[in-house]
Amino acid sequence: MHPLRTHIERITPLTDQEFSYILGHFEEKKLRKHQYLVQAGTYDRFDNWVLGGCLKAFYTDQEGKDHILQFAAEDWWIADYQAYFNQTPATINIDCMEDCQLLQLSVHKREKICSEMHKMEHFFRKKVTSGYIALQQRILSLLTHNPRGRYEEFLRLYPNLSSRIPKKYIAAYLGVSRETLSRLYNEN
Amino acid sequence: MHPLRTHIERITPLTDQEFSYILGHFEEKKLRKHQYLVQAGTYDRFDNWVLGGCLKAFYTDQEGKDHILQFAAEDWWIADYQAYFNQTPATINIDCMEDCQLLQLSVHKREKICSEMHKMEHFFRKKVTSGYIALQQRILSLLTHNPRGRYEEFLRLYPNLSSRIPKKYIAAYLGVSRETLSRLYNEN
Repeated sequence: MHPLRTHIERITPLTDQEFSYILGHFEEKKLRKHQYLVQAGTYDRFDNWVLGGCLKAFYTDQEGKDHILQFAAEDWWIADYQAYFNQTPATINIDCMEDCQLLQLSVHKREKICSEMHKMEHFFRKKVTSGYIALQQRILSLLTHNPRGRYEEFLRLYPNLSSRIPKKYIAAYLGVSRETLSRLYNEN
Repeated sequence: MHPLRTHIERITPLTDQEFSYILGHFEEKKLRKHQYLVQAGTYDRFDNWVLGGCLKAFYTDQEGKDHILQFAAEDWWIADYQAYFNQTPATINIDCMEDCQLLQLSVHKREKICSEMHKMEHFFRKKVTSGYIALQQRILSLLTHNPRGRYEEFLRLYPNLSSRIPKKYIAAYLGVSRETLSRLYNEN
């Protein structure tokens, strides 16, 4: 079964015909390691479902320091959602930490399939609801945990990512210094 | 027009009959200032739309310090969404900073009207998408801004809340000390 179909069917069953119709709204995109998918200041026309590879979404502050908003590996979605849904210039960058293969969905086509197919409206409501809950947990983690607590939570939530992502990026995701993260790694 | 109807019709038009059917799924709830809507460890059976008043959702850490996840005033929704959607015990508390009047929707009835009415599935998809974008912005603010930047962003996003909410709660929302926030207030 196509991995996107497996992904959607975790929430709602589809017929062959329905999946084929849905897939027709996506475009394939391949990027090499270090290439940018989205650059701050440009338009982010697509939501991206990751078929293979690993990406990071990050904000570069006025001092040139990067802060990581999100990682995405297989089976995840990634975009500058503010820019995507409001059709405003992106404020974050998204680049590839590995060679990547993506399936891209424009906001126009997303709204079209949601409007045509109640079950796709349902699918995206469920996906974004899960995302909302995960972001609330991350905010609580940022507000309440010290660096050790944040790191342990990251390991618990994303056991497969921690070996795949350079430590400096995990530090920038957790909002801790690289030195602090190295110390925590060595203690584990 | 009923304020809930105005709220929903910002996203999707409704007939009189449809709104009346939708409203039939909500229950009214009144709480006094300082009363709890949700207590950590208990079940949070309802999502709550605020008809009047002002509430806060907060996490109490092991040292007894409160961290504020969310405020809600008129026209906002508030719940422990992790507990609500997964039907697990609440991890946060929600209490009233003023006398409150709420319209409550159980998860069962929410799923029922979403399944029966494509336009309500659409409404909730749009609402949760806006919420997701707002949470991403808050994470970026927590990662990148110093206390002054966080406070200025709060004033920009919620100009009406800052006069209504005690400063100690705004400090607990921003993740800054009360002393730091007082200094920022005096500088403005």
